[in-house]
Amino acid sequence: MKARVTVTLKPSILDPQGKAIEGALKSLGVGGIASVRQGKIFEIEVEGGDKAKAEAALKQAADKLLANTVIENYRVEIE
Amino acid sequence: MKARVTVTLKPSILDPQGKAIEGALKSLGVGGIASVRQGKIFEIEVEGGDKAKAEAALKQAADKLLANTVIENYRVEIE
Repeated sequence: MKARVTVTLKPSILDPQGKAIEGALKSLGVGGIASVRQGKIFEIEVEGGDKAKAEAALKQAADKLLANTVIENYRVEIE
Repeated sequence: MKARVTVTLKPSILDPQGKAIEGALKSLGVGGIASVRQGKIFEIEVEGGDKAKAEAALKQAADKLLANTVIENYRVEIE
């Protein structure tokens, strides 16, 4: 089963990397970009066909390793 | 307008970072994970309401800066 965990900074946390990308896009002449925030995405192949079990495992993975829940939010999607 | 650019390694490119995460999840006792591949996600706020124009700007941004198209694929989604 394919799944995706998306990890993004919480809205209240500053994102200097995103700000740098914003500035770089402006210097490259790409117009119309108001703001950029960068996050991470994990494309995960889960064994077995039990959706509920897969979701539980992925949430555990995100809490333990993939996201720093003090400053980041995560979202689990299963296809 | 909110948009999202997702950048992932091409399937033929090895992902040592993903492999390391896979190993770490195993050591942490998170079971049922067959494989992990890591990518990047950019949450972008685009000025104006013209979808076609926004998509063109985002593709330009991805080609010029956000993705290395030799080894990475990207996907543009506009909400």
